[in-house]
Amino acid sequence: MRVSVIGGSTVTESQAKSAERVGRRLAQRGHTVVCGGLGGVMEAACRGASETDGRTIGILPGEERAAANPHVDVPIATGLGHARNALVVMNGDAVIAVDGGVGTLSEVGYAGVFDRPIAGIGTHDAPGVEPVGSAAEAVTYVEETVESRGETDV
Amino acid sequence: MRVSVIGGSTVTESQAKSAERVGRRLAQRGHTVVCGGLGGVMEAACRGASETDGRTIGILPGEERAAANPHVDVPIATGLGHARNALVVMNGDAVIAVDGGVGTLSEVGYAGVFDRPIAGIGTHDAPGVEPVGSAAEAVTYVEETVESRGETDV
Amino acid sequence: MRVSVIGGSTVTESQAKSAERVGRRLAQRGHTVVCGGLGGVMEAACRGASETDGRTIGILPGEERAAANPHVDVPIATGLGHARNALVVMNGDAVIAVDGGVGTLSEVGYAGVFDRPIAGIGTHDAPGVEPVGSAAEAVTYVEETVESRGETDV
Amino acid sequence: MRVSVIGGSTVTESQAKSAERVGRRLAQRGHTVVCGGLGGVMEAACRGASETDGRTIGILPGEERAAANPHVDVPIATGLGHARNALVVMNGDAVIAVDGGVGTLSEVGYAGVFDRPIAGIGTHDAPGVEPVGSAAEAVTYVEETVESRGETDV
Repeated sequence: MRVSVIGGSTVTESQAKSAERVGRRLAQRGHTVVCGGLGGVMEAACRGASETDGRTIGILPGEERAAANPHVDVPIATGLGHARNALVVMNGDAVIAVDGGVGTLSEVGYAGVFDRPIAGIGTHDAPGVEPVGSAAEAVTYVEETVESRGETDV
Repeated sequence: MRVSVIGGSTVTESQAKSAERVGRRLAQRGHTVVCGGLGGVMEAACRGASETDGRTIGILPGEERAAANPHVDVPIATGLGHARNALVVMNGDAVIAVDGGVGTLSEVGYAGVFDRPIAGIGTHDAPGVEPVGSAAEAVTYVEETVESRGETDV
Repeated sequence: MRVSVIGGSTVTESQAKSAERVGRRLAQRGHTVVCGGLGGVMEAACRGASETDGRTIGILPGEERAAANPHVDVPIATGLGHARNALVVMNGDAVIAVDGGVGTLSEVGYAGVFDRPIAGIGTHDAPGVEPVGSAAEAVTYVEETVESRGETDV
Repeated sequence: MRVSVIGGSTVTESQAKSAERVGRRLAQRGHTVVCGGLGGVMEAACRGASETDGRTIGILPGEERAAANPHVDVPIATGLGHARNALVVMNGDAVIAVDGGVGTLSEVGYAGVFDRPIAGIGTHDAPGVEPVGSAAEAVTYVEETVESRGETDV
């Protein structure tokens, strides 16, 4: 399935490690990483996935796909600015949030709007967010939740 | 100035009263209500404003402006679906949230993204939200915050 | 009704005069001008309308409503870039095109997509465009076409 | 490079053949097909590409990626309705138009806006469209034009 990984565009080393582990784990389990295509958590998750031969899709705010971080396989330019946050969430079957500020909060809201399960590592305490302690737990949570709903799309 | 009023599309009687008071108060103070143009908090805020000869702008998710509630003066169709939430927030100088679920949470996130002050009446406890107890307090809070920043646009 | 006036953002004096006459005529007939909110044909049409106490709505590509030309009454920021062209057309009941390049061509296409009648003054020879010789003829054409369809929305 | 293939969502058998040949040729030359993800020309181009082991990206108007035709490898849901036409064009380095109505015309306009070369097979006679007689000619035209500009992105 596809999992949207969301979080801040600037990160501490420990947050980057965490996001990288999420990307790696998703790739090991055969899932595709969807993200906003830029730096911070987005880049770390893509790096983790691509080191494990996983697939990554980056849905960018600007009109130039060259703005994608180097670990994005399929950059999608939108030119929508922050409204593209809706598309980042819409294109995953589930969401994993790592840290993150107000942009991430808008995406957590959209996860609710589009009814996607969310696992959160050190992120907002908000409706629908399942707090987990590790990348492995995050991936297990979204796999089990999506499976139990029987809704994987594509 | 313009103030975006956000909140649930289905409301209890007490929440509707609250939103209506927000709309009335904004109109009395000469402000324009911006909202998502549909029912619930959006409609109640527009009703309050229009009863006080205030102006109301409704930024709709669909392609038909006829979908706006009857108290919207200037309906704007977008056809963007939930991505229009970004536009609702972007078009106010400040935000007042009344109650609300996950759609409102995405807008609270956008208020942070676009650096708009937010007063909240019975809404999410989230970054940037100033909890207030009444419509009057909400309007005073956003007026003072915008004024102190010296940033009113238009 | 609302009429979207589309055309180039840079214009010759004669094109500006033409767009100004379109705005003035629409206002005299009680219609609201919808446009992209910026310069050239957009500004000239708004100027014509506002000199005649008409109403004008500007649907902007950027996130700042301060970017609107000074004759826009209701600026709407979108942050969507060129994708906002769809919204300019969607928010009118009919379209009048004055001159214009490739951006205008995208809007002429959208007029077809949203089934809006289009009168064209010195613009693209494209499907659906009714070539007319003056502002008065343009307004008469869109009035008669919308009336004959019985579809005026709002 | 990526090439956006645009055209009508309902096609005659001969138009479908034409679009299929475009997809096949693009794949043989190592290019990725970008399209609107639905039926008609979009589906035929994807079918042609996928029969030749080419890659295909479908940028959909709706929120559900399951709406993509079966030959789309990477479906991208947008929920933007017709505003997604901008994204279809923005995500290619060049455009090939086969037939097509008003939606295609909006995309031809966007090709000008985003400065993408366009080859056209039986499509609109509009600014920037280079009329060609075959899929091979279309692909050669866009390859040569993009190469001469030295601008291939990604």
